[in-house]
Amino acid sequence: MRISEIDVTRIAHGEASRERDAVVIEEPLEIRVDDRPISVTLRTPGDDFDLAAGFLFTESIVRESNDVESIRHWASPNVVRVGLRDGVRVDWQRLQRHFYSTSSCGVCGKTSIDAIRVFTSPLASRAQLAAEAIVRMPDTLRAQQTTFDATGGIHAAGIFDANGTLLRAREDVGRHNAVDKVIGSFFREGVALDDRVLVVSGRASFEIVQKAVVARLAALVAVGAPSSLAIELAKEMNLALYGFVREGRLNVY
Amino acid sequence: MRISEIDVTRIAHGEASRERDAVVIEEPLEIRVDDRPISVTLRTPGDDFDLAAGFLFTESIVRESNDVESIRHWASPNVVRVGLRDGVRVDWQRLQRHFYSTSSCGVCGKTSIDAIRVFTSPLASRAQLAAEAIVRMPDTLRAQQTTFDATGGIHAAGIFDANGTLLRAREDVGRHNAVDKVIGSFFREGVALDDRVLVVSGRASFEIVQKAVVARLAALVAVGAPSSLAIELAKEMNLALYGFVREGRLNVY
Repeated sequence: MRISEIDVTRIAHGEASRERDAVVIEEPLEIRVDDRPISVTLRTPGDDFDLAAGFLFTESIVRESNDVESIRHWASPNVVRVGLRDGVRVDWQRLQRHFYSTSSCGVCGKTSIDAIRVFTSPLASRAQLAAEAIVRMPDTLRAQQTTFDATGGIHAAGIFDANGTLLRAREDVGRHNAVDKVIGSFFREGVALDDRVLVVSGRASFEIVQKAVVARLAALVAVGAPSSLAIELAKEMNLALYGFVREGRLNVY
Repeated sequence: MRISEIDVTRIAHGEASRERDAVVIEEPLEIRVDDRPISVTLRTPGDDFDLAAGFLFTESIVRESNDVESIRHWASPNVVRVGLRDGVRVDWQRLQRHFYSTSSCGVCGKTSIDAIRVFTSPLASRAQLAAEAIVRMPDTLRAQQTTFDATGGIHAAGIFDANGTLLRAREDVGRHNAVDKVIGSFFREGVALDDRVLVVSGRASFEIVQKAVVARLAALVAVGAPSSLAIELAKEMNLALYGFVREGRLNVY
């Protein structure tokens, strides 16, 4: 269930009318690893297992799909418990330092970028995609956004091949969640994303670039603007970064 | 410094050109209360003291401006330390439960809403604003967005009076940060926001409604869509909520 119906008073140029309207559902999801609560995110229900798996993968908590033994709802539709395979160890102390120094450091972006290197390495080389393929990707993604059409209030993320073919798309009220859902869906199948392209309906922030690099994607295409820190991280990690991709135009960073 | 200049390759309808471009700066900010790190947010530098004060206020960590004795940068331009007045106590255990059960609960939205009631009460009555005043607010806010003009990648939040006069606006790469900055700027002056209107350039999520209610604002006006949980919380708390306010139209929830 991604959409809820409500009564709304619509006022257009001074004229009021009472109507039914669709709004996107936002509810908290708690992600647990075994019995440890890891994170709570406000998300759109649906694809919860993809979201949990994608979050654990892109935050470098688990490395490969074999590490995950089970994913299930736990006592509530808003709690997902990810069970790890026997013998898989998460270094929680190191993780806490990682969280502290990336999403969460009091220091400069440079140090954040150094911290990420502990968990992943730069891509071997920067991909060069054809501009004609890139400019079409956001429209293709948009055409899949059924929930956006109804509510106007949801983000999308899609995985494309380098020729511009959409492989899979996911929607969520949160930008990061949409990315985690689509990456997590492949992760759960054990499918690597090398040479694939992540396309997002919003802007390219530091955290989106970070997730793309950890998932070993070749490129990030954003309809919106990139931030300074996103550009810096993409450069250091050899992730191809395209922004403001709309109406036949794009910027290469 | 909100803007950084970079070199970019612009491709428009197949034609490439090399240009200088402005991007919005995103850097982490750590907020400390006395010697305790509370939060790290990726923000656009500038108005850091407003951001820290607004965050502590809208998250119900401090209640009034007199509780704050000092705000200063601490060893780094990306760390702000808020010193509390002698005798002001923060109930950290209660706070942790609050964070766990609001931004962060594994249970349903209803329980999140109950948790907020611990820290604040519903507004006495729901404000009724004139539609003619509301529809003009986003354009007025937009006209103040100097950084958006340059970069196309930043959110804005403004405080208006009920007649549609803009009192103050702030910009940030993060939606929540822009709201905390503008609310925090009034909080630091000890100015109450009763009867005032919060206008945001993006969508109305649960957390934005929560911040508006804690700050005792009368209404929230969003250019974008509200979520289901935002509508539910606004209703229970008597916050007037307007969404999709653009091009002479609006929805009343």
